[in-house]
Amino acid sequence: MKKEAVNLDKREQIKHRKRERLKTYMMCLSCECKSKPETEYSHSWPHGGIFLKEEAKNGLNSKEVEISRRKEKMDYVYAPGRNHLFVPGPVNIPEPVIRAMNRNNEDYRSPAIPALTKTLLEDVKKIFKTTTGVPFLIPTTGTGAWESALTNTLSPGDRIVSFLIGQFSLLWIDQQQRLNFDVDVVESEWGRGANLDVLESKLASDTSHTIKAICIVHNETATGVTNNLAKVRQLLDDYQHPALFLVDGVSSICALDFRMDEWGIDVALTGSQKALSLPTGMGIVCASPKALEASKTAKSVRVFFDWKDYLKFYQMGTYWPYTPSIQLLYGLRAALDLIFEEGLENVIIRHKRLGKATRLAVEAWGLKNCTQKEEWVSDTVTAVVVPPDIDSAEIVRIAWKRYNMNLGLGLNKVAGKVFRIGHLGNLNELQLLGCLAGVEMILKDVGYPVKLGSGVAAASAYLQNNIPLIPSRI
Amino acid sequence: MKKEAVNLDKREQIKHRKRERLKTYMMCLSCECKSKPETEYSHSWPHGGIFLKEEAKNGLNSKEVEISRRKEKMDYVYAPGRNHLFVPGPVNIPEPVIRAMNRNNEDYRSPAIPALTKTLLEDVKKIFKTTTGVPFLIPTTGTGAWESALTNTLSPGDRIVSFLIGQFSLLWIDQQQRLNFDVDVVESEWGRGANLDVLESKLASDTSHTIKAICIVHNETATGVTNNLAKVRQLLDDYQHPALFLVDGVSSICALDFRMDEWGIDVALTGSQKALSLPTGMGIVCASPKALEASKTAKSVRVFFDWKDYLKFYQMGTYWPYTPSIQLLYGLRAALDLIFEEGLENVIIRHKRLGKATRLAVEAWGLKNCTQKEEWVSDTVTAVVVPPDIDSAEIVRIAWKRYNMNLGLGLNKVAGKVFRIGHLGNLNELQLLGCLAGVEMILKDVGYPVKLGSGVAAASAYLQNNIPLIPSRI
Amino acid sequence: MKKEAVNLDKREQIKHRKRERLKTYMMCLSCECKSKPETEYSHSWPHGGIFLKEEAKNGLNSKEVEISRRKEKMDYVYAPGRNHLFVPGPVNIPEPVIRAMNRNNEDYRSPAIPALTKTLLEDVKKIFKTTTGVPFLIPTTGTGAWESALTNTLSPGDRIVSFLIGQFSLLWIDQQQRLNFDVDVVESEWGRGANLDVLESKLASDTSHTIKAICIVHNETATGVTNNLAKVRQLLDDYQHPALFLVDGVSSICALDFRMDEWGIDVALTGSQKALSLPTGMGIVCASPKALEASKTAKSVRVFFDWKDYLKFYQMGTYWPYTPSIQLLYGLRAALDLIFEEGLENVIIRHKRLGKATRLAVEAWGLKNCTQKEEWVSDTVTAVVVPPDIDSAEIVRIAWKRYNMNLGLGLNKVAGKVFRIGHLGNLNELQLLGCLAGVEMILKDVGYPVKLGSGVAAASAYLQNNIPLIPSRI
Amino acid sequence: MKKEAVNLDKREQIKHRKRERLKTYMMCLSCECKSKPETEYSHSWPHGGIFLKEEAKNGLNSKEVEISRRKEKMDYVYAPGRNHLFVPGPVNIPEPVIRAMNRNNEDYRSPAIPALTKTLLEDVKKIFKTTTGVPFLIPTTGTGAWESALTNTLSPGDRIVSFLIGQFSLLWIDQQQRLNFDVDVVESEWGRGANLDVLESKLASDTSHTIKAICIVHNETATGVTNNLAKVRQLLDDYQHPALFLVDGVSSICALDFRMDEWGIDVALTGSQKALSLPTGMGIVCASPKALEASKTAKSVRVFFDWKDYLKFYQMGTYWPYTPSIQLLYGLRAALDLIFEEGLENVIIRHKRLGKATRLAVEAWGLKNCTQKEEWVSDTVTAVVVPPDIDSAEIVRIAWKRYNMNLGLGLNKVAGKVFRIGHLGNLNELQLLGCLAGVEMILKDVGYPVKLGSGVAAASAYLQNNIPLIPSRI
Repeated sequence: MKKEAVNLDKREQIKHRKRERLKTYMMCLSCECKSKPETEYSHSWPHGGIFLKEEAKNGLNSKEVEISRRKEKMDYVYAPGRNHLFVPGPVNIPEPVIRAMNRNNEDYRSPAIPALTKTLLEDVKKIFKTTTGVPFLIPTTGTGAWESALTNTLSPGDRIVSFLIGQFSLLWIDQQQRLNFDVDVVESEWGRGANLDVLESKLASDTSHTIKAICIVHNETATGVTNNLAKVRQLLDDYQHPALFLVDGVSSICALDFRMDEWGIDVALTGSQKALSLPTGMGIVCASPKALEASKTAKSVRVFFDWKDYLKFYQMGTYWPYTPSIQLLYGLRAALDLIFEEGLENVIIRHKRLGKATRLAVEAWGLKNCTQKEEWVSDTVTAVVVPPDIDSAEIVRIAWKRYNMNLGLGLNKVAGKVFRIGHLGNLNELQLLGCLAGVEMILKDVGYPVKLGSGVAAASAYLQNNIPLIPSRI
Repeated sequence: MKKEAVNLDKREQIKHRKRERLKTYMMCLSCECKSKPETEYSHSWPHGGIFLKEEAKNGLNSKEVEISRRKEKMDYVYAPGRNHLFVPGPVNIPEPVIRAMNRNNEDYRSPAIPALTKTLLEDVKKIFKTTTGVPFLIPTTGTGAWESALTNTLSPGDRIVSFLIGQFSLLWIDQQQRLNFDVDVVESEWGRGANLDVLESKLASDTSHTIKAICIVHNETATGVTNNLAKVRQLLDDYQHPALFLVDGVSSICALDFRMDEWGIDVALTGSQKALSLPTGMGIVCASPKALEASKTAKSVRVFFDWKDYLKFYQMGTYWPYTPSIQLLYGLRAALDLIFEEGLENVIIRHKRLGKATRLAVEAWGLKNCTQKEEWVSDTVTAVVVPPDIDSAEIVRIAWKRYNMNLGLGLNKVAGKVFRIGHLGNLNELQLLGCLAGVEMILKDVGYPVKLGSGVAAASAYLQNNIPLIPSRI
Repeated sequence: MKKEAVNLDKREQIKHRKRERLKTYMMCLSCECKSKPETEYSHSWPHGGIFLKEEAKNGLNSKEVEISRRKEKMDYVYAPGRNHLFVPGPVNIPEPVIRAMNRNNEDYRSPAIPALTKTLLEDVKKIFKTTTGVPFLIPTTGTGAWESALTNTLSPGDRIVSFLIGQFSLLWIDQQQRLNFDVDVVESEWGRGANLDVLESKLASDTSHTIKAICIVHNETATGVTNNLAKVRQLLDDYQHPALFLVDGVSSICALDFRMDEWGIDVALTGSQKALSLPTGMGIVCASPKALEASKTAKSVRVFFDWKDYLKFYQMGTYWPYTPSIQLLYGLRAALDLIFEEGLENVIIRHKRLGKATRLAVEAWGLKNCTQKEEWVSDTVTAVVVPPDIDSAEIVRIAWKRYNMNLGLGLNKVAGKVFRIGHLGNLNELQLLGCLAGVEMILKDVGYPVKLGSGVAAASAYLQNNIPLIPSRI
Repeated sequence: MKKEAVNLDKREQIKHRKRERLKTYMMCLSCECKSKPETEYSHSWPHGGIFLKEEAKNGLNSKEVEISRRKEKMDYVYAPGRNHLFVPGPVNIPEPVIRAMNRNNEDYRSPAIPALTKTLLEDVKKIFKTTTGVPFLIPTTGTGAWESALTNTLSPGDRIVSFLIGQFSLLWIDQQQRLNFDVDVVESEWGRGANLDVLESKLASDTSHTIKAICIVHNETATGVTNNLAKVRQLLDDYQHPALFLVDGVSSICALDFRMDEWGIDVALTGSQKALSLPTGMGIVCASPKALEASKTAKSVRVFFDWKDYLKFYQMGTYWPYTPSIQLLYGLRAALDLIFEEGLENVIIRHKRLGKATRLAVEAWGLKNCTQKEEWVSDTVTAVVVPPDIDSAEIVRIAWKRYNMNLGLGLNKVAGKVFRIGHLGNLNELQLLGCLAGVEMILKDVGYPVKLGSGVAAASAYLQNNIPLIPSRI
């Protein structure tokens, strides 16, 4: 084999090596994604399971699982040094937050927990930039927060406009359809933002106000696209349309500029494991007075997610219709304290800085950003397009197997085509530069002719001019 | 006032003192529970908020909250020594489990988490005593687990038989009704078990099988009543009735004798913060093949709680349709390891021992157990009936204010009449005896003529004969 | 064997049973302590190793150790529920302190650590009740703190008066002798306090001031004897004697009334794992100006323990001549915060309360306190004398093997004769009552005719009248 | 001012900016280090205190300390993201080790702790590569470990040969002198290794064997110089000299190739906070049979550090002459498990890789390594020489104030001239590359004309070819 290789020219050699490598994963890729492709609007991550499925095929049988469990009570797949966690959630938890959650359970009906909850409900509004909204800290995930937003404000059959621009907006739309709403799907090419022109024409023609809600993902985590929410509000105002404005802020709130009151958002939501940098387990939903009013007549069946139960206990001063996670409450307290200490505006500026630095590195590598226009670039996640002869899943795989780093896979339509760098939450510049240096080595590993150091140089040239002094240390 | 008191005889003095004390809470008690009583089937804990509401009334205003927050970053209401946590959930988390959860987030799409999940799904079946069931580890609470059990197996309008024997069965029934099922509520006096005679007659007459499910709470946490599940199965078998058998095992699984397969249970569920001794945040639902079959045609609307999504990801080997709490997964691993090390049967025997000891103490104090018959006594929670001149909420309040102990309030119909001692989860005998010694002092505090040491003596006489040596230390 | 037993009368049966039990340990007890007794002034705990030695004899061979290690990564000898830790040190660490120490290392030369250290040095003086003393936070144990106190203030050959009243004063004397001081050992029967009459006569006759220091253990942890430090100061003043006054406050400071300045103590010391309720690893030594002056001329060889190096770094503002434990520094900060929040005086009163309650229980059991006179009783540790036919080590052993409780062994002269209940540090009343209930069951286990509940009743009768409301919860 | 600057040429401008910057620290630098220089062989870090002293001067008065304390219970000087800890100790603690130490105290006299200790003593020998040595796990720091090594094997007046090659060997020599040994100091220029030619001539001429010990620091942490221990042994053998061979392995053991038995080392020692990646607080000393024999006659006064007490308790099977830190014992267990899982040889290779990568970056920056010859380069710490017009302390200061990174200061003779990158312990390649990217930005900050990305490129070119796959993840 090596013999043959010698005769190929450089470019061919690279391709050849690529093919050799790809063979290893071919079975999985082809059977799951190419031969038997998921339906386009499927609610799953076709490539999400790539690693495990392979292992299943290679036979991580029950005996081996047993061994690996015994071998590693403490950690399943230990590697020296820190794990470099650069998926766009769950993100790194800051040490003070880990500490705050390191505790025994408490009786949530004793006076301590309501007193704590009261401060949380008050302070969490600040990260939504709302004074009139009412927040709900629901023991669930982002998917549950979506369901809470929809079922509390809408009735089955209600017409809604929803934008399909990537895997997460797709999943939300799938949920909307399964909850029996009548969804006008406005699709864009993946890598582009929500098509607001279509929205405008729909609003213009909807003089009878059949559209009950506009559902939009602020930041599409699959493609690194940030939508213009102010513009959506502008259109609603222009046409004096009363539709509810529901926003998935999962990968934006606490990281990107987000203004619930100013932009007239009716329900905004996020998950604890994103920019708040907590463990998963708390879906944070914030409802405007208009949304609360709508919830009184919304006919969607709901119990666990029903705001009514929360509001009843809010009034009673005990706050919880069912048991909350004591640990997450103390964790949220610590997370908010850290955010307020840094300053929410500074947090947002830090994300701008990290986003810009990442994009400069991608450019220096000669690669494309999945986001097709500057107006949509995301400061929390960058989806990097790889050349056609490279499988982006291999990049993610090597990151984990060789560099103790986690990058995000390309999902669904962009599976194999992009890998994602999450740069949100409690993260700083040197962490990001370590990641970028790692990506460069991986690009070389997979045969892409990157100039080592080029991305780091571009990013650090920008950062060196823009990182402020740490206020507590001046 | 003191002057007057002098002239009262001893008994009167006590009553007088009681009244004086009660006045403090009167406003709250009367306005919330007496003047404006909740509807009987209300889905709330009328007394749950007693402490906080008072504080609200006494004006724990925002400035004070601010001060208290600043004063105590680490703990809101510090008291020296361990908190004695004897509510029937959330319960004490063992130190090894706290340790296992003391960690940063991880990428749940890397191979480590599915490998871990696989062992959890396999092992969690053991605590349900099922080999054919399929478990779901849902990021939710017990209330969500209920909803998962119902919506995946039933369709709106389905007729179900449900037993109302206390606050938690009441809340489940409330949920069943709000989810639009047609509920035959079989009510018992609080303190008595499910009326299975009524069930029998319903089954006998239901020759056309209109009853689609029997819903029963194994252990009613509000009254300390354990129902006979084997008997329910017997009746279903006797009448060859195909109804699904859905069981709330929230305060029983992993503590009481529970046999999913043997008793032909179709859906069983529990919450992480109960006998598993984890933080809140994981609703564990286990479905029989029959329940899984039913889920294919059940028409209840569901997305977040839909088993279908889980099953799809199980098949793909990635296991998670949305982000799980990494910390809870590792915590569950550690919790199961501890349970298996002790031995599940030994865990159940330990709960029997603690339950028996508690009841012996109650008897020695001359008080009544809320549970009216020996056949229903609960080994996880004991609801103690106080004399009419004592407000049980005051006992709970004093436990917290003076002894750093948390007892359970009486809820709804038994509010003010019982207090509850939770003795489930990772707990040992000396912890319980400390609690019992504390209850004795509190009984004296509220004027009940208890003989100090009497309950402890009765309990320890039994325990001293029944505690085994610790196997790892022999 | 059982046959024979039948013919013995009750009392004989008990003795017989005792003997049977003792046989198991006989080999160890006789060979180590009876056949080959340690020299009287030995610096070791003859019974300390009882358990392990047996295991060594029974052959806990390397393979078994291997197995046990693998079996229990998390805990070597797991038992359900909390461990009841009632040795007089190390004591329970409060959860907020565990949390504060749950952290990565930091650079101790960055500005953060000196800033933290500065607050610690300032605040730690308060627990010594000194304004003029200079504290040293030495990375060592109590034994090291002793050495620091002695070598910094004295020169080889210096005459010192030292009181031998139990195992820990004996160990200090052993150290004094090995450091080449000329020690006047003033011995008391174990269970009695320091013989201050002898001190008086020594001071009276020492007109030429050959005595350079008085060394005294404030609270002898082995016998539960608290010495009268005010009296020592009085005698020194009466005779206008310039001897340095060196005090071991290991099991007293932060628990008993201790007044460094008022009592004219020149060096006082404690260890982090005692009443401060931290892990072991910090020896806290506080030196008066007179002691600091003495250190300038003291000729004992010292480097690691040399105050001079600390003072130099204090002046430079970097505080540390070598690397401190970052975790212990943050832990000490949290521990001090908790103590100040409770109020140092309240902490001392709580210890008084716990001590009194314990002694009342011992009395109720019909057992003797090792402390022979009321004036010497200790509020941090109670040494309970067992009847001659009982081996106190068996009580300790059963506590551990059956009840997940740790009691203190009898040491040296009182080995087998007393067991010890430590009631110091971050501990509350219900914890103590759980311990007392446990001791009652163990007494019954070993055949002592205790009335179950009697000790708990006596203790709780006292406590119920004396426990204050928790200030943060009123 | 800016006006003037315009007229200066580029080189002058840089110098000018430098001067401006330096002014800020001038007072401190000049008064402490230039005007009143420490004596050459001082045992302190003149620049260690630079930050704090300044703050003291700028008036971090008691009120401000108070505020900062209140402001930040959790962290004194919070900054977002991970702290990049690149001092050569204390180093990053891996998460599994932090977890293992997250625990309450235990009774160290119960069977669990000796059983644990036994495994530790057995396993710790492996990291020294000794089968005949006896290890001591002393609750102290490296300075205490030095004292333990010296006082247990030598008598006052004993002649020893000791090599002065940097600040830490200097400090050890200072200790040796203060412990009254007769020290032949063999000095090298800082940046060079121990002068073994001088050793050879001393050994050659010492036919009467007046030299009792050779003391050498394996890796001088201040200059990044690794000495050749095999060569020292060779010389001792060549001259059949019986001198004891005492080695400070503080920044080498568990990171560099270290062979106690093969190299005939008599006492080797390290500290827990170095390559073992634990908190500070355990000095690990390992003694050869010859050293143990010497300890029987060594006349240096010692109690706390006396091996005799340890050996006595080893024989008894209880292991501890005084209280150990329970947390550090469990932490050491976890640390050793991680090292053995990675493989000690792989750990050493990883350090080689990190060391090489760092040196390649330094070269790419056009800077000099303080280590003057390739034979002495250190794989655990690199001391980087800065150009004369740059103050290296400013680099360290900016790292902390702007980049949340900790670098090592230049100490004593090389203060202001070098900064140090520690690359030892539980660390991986992307962490190091993040650090190197940070250093590049700082170099630019201080005006050094570095090409951004150049060091990272050089390092990652090497690393990309040399990083192995993570075994647990293949």
